[in-house]
Amino acid sequence: MSTAPTARVFSSDNTAGTSAEILDALAREATGQALPYGADDTTATVRRRLSDVFEREVDVLLVSTGSAANALGLAALTPPWGSVLCHRDSHINNDECGAPEFYTAGAKLVPLGGDDAKIDPDELRAAARHKAGDVHSVEPSVVSITQCTETGAVYTLDELRTLGSVAEEAGLRTHMDGARFAGAIASLDCAPAELTWRAGVDVLSFGATKNGTMTADAIVVFDRSLTPELAFRAKRAGQLASKMRFQAAQFDAYLADGLWLRNARHANAMAARLQEGLKAIPEVRLLGTADANIVFCRLPQQITEGLLSDGYAFYHDRWEPGVARFVTSFTTAPQDIDHLLRAVRQHAA
Amino acid sequence: MSTAPTARVFSSDNTAGTSAEILDALAREATGQALPYGADDTTATVRRRLSDVFEREVDVLLVSTGSAANALGLAALTPPWGSVLCHRDSHINNDECGAPEFYTAGAKLVPLGGDDAKIDPDELRAAARHKAGDVHSVEPSVVSITQCTETGAVYTLDELRTLGSVAEEAGLRTHMDGARFAGAIASLDCAPAELTWRAGVDVLSFGATKNGTMTADAIVVFDRSLTPELAFRAKRAGQLASKMRFQAAQFDAYLADGLWLRNARHANAMAARLQEGLKAIPEVRLLGTADANIVFCRLPQQITEGLLSDGYAFYHDRWEPGVARFVTSFTTAPQDIDHLLRAVRQHAA
Amino acid sequence: MSTAPTARVFSSDNTAGTSAEILDALAREATGQALPYGADDTTATVRRRLSDVFEREVDVLLVSTGSAANALGLAALTPPWGSVLCHRDSHINNDECGAPEFYTAGAKLVPLGGDDAKIDPDELRAAARHKAGDVHSVEPSVVSITQCTETGAVYTLDELRTLGSVAEEAGLRTHMDGARFAGAIASLDCAPAELTWRAGVDVLSFGATKNGTMTADAIVVFDRSLTPELAFRAKRAGQLASKMRFQAAQFDAYLADGLWLRNARHANAMAARLQEGLKAIPEVRLLGTADANIVFCRLPQQITEGLLSDGYAFYHDRWEPGVARFVTSFTTAPQDIDHLLRAVRQHAA
Amino acid sequence: MSTAPTARVFSSDNTAGTSAEILDALAREATGQALPYGADDTTATVRRRLSDVFEREVDVLLVSTGSAANALGLAALTPPWGSVLCHRDSHINNDECGAPEFYTAGAKLVPLGGDDAKIDPDELRAAARHKAGDVHSVEPSVVSITQCTETGAVYTLDELRTLGSVAEEAGLRTHMDGARFAGAIASLDCAPAELTWRAGVDVLSFGATKNGTMTADAIVVFDRSLTPELAFRAKRAGQLASKMRFQAAQFDAYLADGLWLRNARHANAMAARLQEGLKAIPEVRLLGTADANIVFCRLPQQITEGLLSDGYAFYHDRWEPGVARFVTSFTTAPQDIDHLLRAVRQHAA
Repeated sequence: MSTAPTARVFSSDNTAGTSAEILDALAREATGQALPYGADDTTATVRRRLSDVFEREVDVLLVSTGSAANALGLAALTPPWGSVLCHRDSHINNDECGAPEFYTAGAKLVPLGGDDAKIDPDELRAAARHKAGDVHSVEPSVVSITQCTETGAVYTLDELRTLGSVAEEAGLRTHMDGARFAGAIASLDCAPAELTWRAGVDVLSFGATKNGTMTADAIVVFDRSLTPELAFRAKRAGQLASKMRFQAAQFDAYLADGLWLRNARHANAMAARLQEGLKAIPEVRLLGTADANIVFCRLPQQITEGLLSDGYAFYHDRWEPGVARFVTSFTTAPQDIDHLLRAVRQHAA
Repeated sequence: MSTAPTARVFSSDNTAGTSAEILDALAREATGQALPYGADDTTATVRRRLSDVFEREVDVLLVSTGSAANALGLAALTPPWGSVLCHRDSHINNDECGAPEFYTAGAKLVPLGGDDAKIDPDELRAAARHKAGDVHSVEPSVVSITQCTETGAVYTLDELRTLGSVAEEAGLRTHMDGARFAGAIASLDCAPAELTWRAGVDVLSFGATKNGTMTADAIVVFDRSLTPELAFRAKRAGQLASKMRFQAAQFDAYLADGLWLRNARHANAMAARLQEGLKAIPEVRLLGTADANIVFCRLPQQITEGLLSDGYAFYHDRWEPGVARFVTSFTTAPQDIDHLLRAVRQHAA
Repeated sequence: MSTAPTARVFSSDNTAGTSAEILDALAREATGQALPYGADDTTATVRRRLSDVFEREVDVLLVSTGSAANALGLAALTPPWGSVLCHRDSHINNDECGAPEFYTAGAKLVPLGGDDAKIDPDELRAAARHKAGDVHSVEPSVVSITQCTETGAVYTLDELRTLGSVAEEAGLRTHMDGARFAGAIASLDCAPAELTWRAGVDVLSFGATKNGTMTADAIVVFDRSLTPELAFRAKRAGQLASKMRFQAAQFDAYLADGLWLRNARHANAMAARLQEGLKAIPEVRLLGTADANIVFCRLPQQITEGLLSDGYAFYHDRWEPGVARFVTSFTTAPQDIDHLLRAVRQHAA
Repeated sequence: MSTAPTARVFSSDNTAGTSAEILDALAREATGQALPYGADDTTATVRRRLSDVFEREVDVLLVSTGSAANALGLAALTPPWGSVLCHRDSHINNDECGAPEFYTAGAKLVPLGGDDAKIDPDELRAAARHKAGDVHSVEPSVVSITQCTETGAVYTLDELRTLGSVAEEAGLRTHMDGARFAGAIASLDCAPAELTWRAGVDVLSFGATKNGTMTADAIVVFDRSLTPELAFRAKRAGQLASKMRFQAAQFDAYLADGLWLRNARHANAMAARLQEGLKAIPEVRLLGTADANIVFCRLPQQITEGLLSDGYAFYHDRWEPGVARFVTSFTTAPQDIDHLLRAVRQHAA
């Protein structure tokens, strides 16, 4: 793919580069001296910006990957003998090579079902009670909610509140994997506070890399009693960067002037444009709800093969035969979508 | 310190910014699409460059911190029931909050003595034999050598070969913490291969953040049979960046055209200039050997206080009363040193 | 239950006492001095006896619980980033509070389906290939087979060989949880070697506590290259008893003169007697195959309640409503079964 | 040694057998059914007995080894990023193959000095403050006190209270490794409560195996808020025996009628007899204070060799050349001591 034309890459939003504003912020940070390990001014600014975004004081840890954000957050929410209740299709369960198990010193991920990769509340309720307090079994300790989900769906506020109240009743802590959090906000157009701590979220992985930054994601801590523990855990995990200001600068620009939401809205709009276009092609069947920047559809083999031979990059036949996934990003241009649609139509003919 | 004049910060080389070449490299990487997780071209280039530097094929993992580099490398070299023989003053023993213990699943660090924070070969020999093969005790498994040392000394080639042969005889694996590796090369002016795999090093933490990069350090793997394991461990540790190309771009520029050595030579020259100047001030006593970019000295209290009141930042009275440490970096200017020396002379008067 | 008449306890085979021969062996060991930590003669004898049982040299570690045996064995067979493929109803997956995750430093248990709590070979084949070699996912590393299964079924030799060949093709290591291993041998009346290493088993948890000993289970190591590692792991886990000879004495008597098989045959015969009797009661429906000492059946509520009011102890309504489980042991008397059957018939009326 | 005459074994108290009362208790437990996993009556009795011994409600976990007792207790008292302050000669630091590191998920043991293997209070005070609250360093979390010490010395009440107050001031939790706790009580003739919770001890490893039981040690929990966590940890560690009643029966007899103190007083008296005798032999120099059942002395080589050729078993030249250690136990007879002394005198001549 490294030679594929940029405009034809729809395999993931992690293939995109970075926003110009973020590069500029790094340039401003490049000279001068600053205190290391997050004691610098830029890191403090990021914390203030995120407190504004969430309408309350939050603590923030900047880390280098979303996997680290998830694993650290979960480690602060479950004991080693606890279980993490999550969707069976979630990233933490399938795509992090056991990072949560490593960081938690061996907690168990308990996979739950539900449509569109959203946790079914009844399954959560049952799992939260399963052998609770029984030393022969891992102790249900935390629910991890992915927003947007792996399939690109977005939990509604009502759905989140329902999960939150199930968790609260059962005494579970709540973690949110927000690798594509900006996309969810852009989709629901609601206050970030509503989607998180007001719905019971204790710790949020506030992803940014897929939506504009280079090498910076954040853990946003709503239950600030967890912060001292998280600080030790992050250092111990090799996630306390000495020149933290360069991670902070990325975030500062990401949050300033609403760049994070502009980028997400753009990516979502591109997915909507794609969806709209595909809907009009009878040979293509859309699957699930593309609330944000991921479109799943069923493609005839000749279309898939045609697109591949055109140099398009996208996942296909991975979830099940005939199913393809297209992911847009903040760098996708409207004409990229239009070209893709034209290609689909050609190969459908 | 965030308001202190840049020219007066000598507390650490991690307070410096980044090199212009590195910023430029990020700008070149900012647009376009690339394969994620290190499958991109820039990452491949870094591996080739490091193979050239070390005059043999090496494998490379780019990580976000030196602590992660050390902890991952050690985890591949010792079982959980093993011990890591290291200097008692080493960073892994004192300054990483137990990251090696975390990554190795509970191996034990066995502190050894030796002048200038260099491991005494006789102590290493004794420790390597201590209860070897006895299930009641942790098994001596790996020696970790810091080059340059915590006090700024540089192991000579002979010293390294001696440690290497002790390790080989005892069946120990060898790890090198090269957080300031460039400074050691600049100091000894020898081939990187001599200092590492030819002296028995299996895995090297090739530090770059202190010498020019922003958020990128590397693990250089000489015993390439360890690479598959390290790849899983890195992913699991949240150290496999999706947009790896942005870590790679920093490294690419760091290695291209000898920037890494230019930066290190400059930092060393600035320390030498400082050392030379301090030598001429009778009230100051130099301590240890400042082979690279760290100068330890004994300062009368009035000088320490005078410098602090001038706005100088440096560690003092931390190792023992009256002892101060000055660290230079690739951004230190000759006039910064001259001003510092003048200030010392003034306060000595 | 501590006051319930002995004859009415069918809740588990772990409620039974110990065999007289085992008590006698402890008495013989009670006086005199012996080398600690398994260097004593009795421990050596146990190793010889188990080598005879399995018709080849084996290594043996005596531990205090079956959970420790399983967790240690698995830890020697999978790296922390590996996965353990096991039946979803297996003890390691449900009833050990994450002991395997703890001992393996965070490996992942991947639950598979199959009737009678036996692993379906096709599911094993698929899981063994799933994302193998992909650093984003845990690496399929070991299959754990429970013999007898949780429901009291016994894998036939053919079934075991099939799983063994799937494992071999996929490069998986093979672990057997033999908490009720004696019952399986008694049921199949075959050579222990056939059921284990000749079918590809690398490490066996050779359970004894449920079948006669007090506090002693064994790990039987067929792949003896694992023994040094297991020795360190066992010490580190607090499983290397100083007065090992008292665990060994239990095992010595358990193996001498075929006590282990006599006990298991008796327990199985009592379950068969119960099964036979229940078959004749129309209100009761037998479930699954009671190959060894566990009988599952569907009981009308009035029978369940009647038995409970009689003082009978057994699990009911735990797996699903209306389902009851009766477990026999080496201490169950024929008249205990006859009394139970009479009671069932009475309450059925 | 397995063929050495019993009377000549002084290598350790773990070579002895068991007390007749304990064997009898097992016999009483051998028949009948009982609830598993410590829900039986005998286990409840042990808890009551230990509550009586310590003059307050305590919780108790019965485990199979002292290493498991220590490691579990420490794991409940320190986070993974904490440090355990202990004597450099302590068993947890030298003789458990990293069991504390394993159970705590990688906490660090910080070795302290002090005569007679007793922790020096000033060193404890300094270590407790060292980098406390600094995320770059492990957090001082718990002090572990060995009573009796590795050299057979016994902390006085005053010494314990001093350590306890240092710990309290610094916010450290307190663990006691009481592998030879009975010997300490026998030596000081004081209330067990004085030596433990009244001096600030949160969790005690109450050793019994060296003093009469076969395979049973106990964790006595004074800070009962830790009990739920310990229960999960014990299960997960494979330390929750299904037939717990057989560990409990050993303990029940050990505590009943003061057997534990009788045994310890006997062992101590035998050591005193040996010490008294050695004092009168000019060629032998006693070392340290033999407060309990361990005697260290300096022996001329001809005596050491003579005793070995007589078939005596004891450690020599292990700590330093010329130093020998003799350990007595509850099974040592007065004439064993007299014979040993006679042999020493013969070889001295």
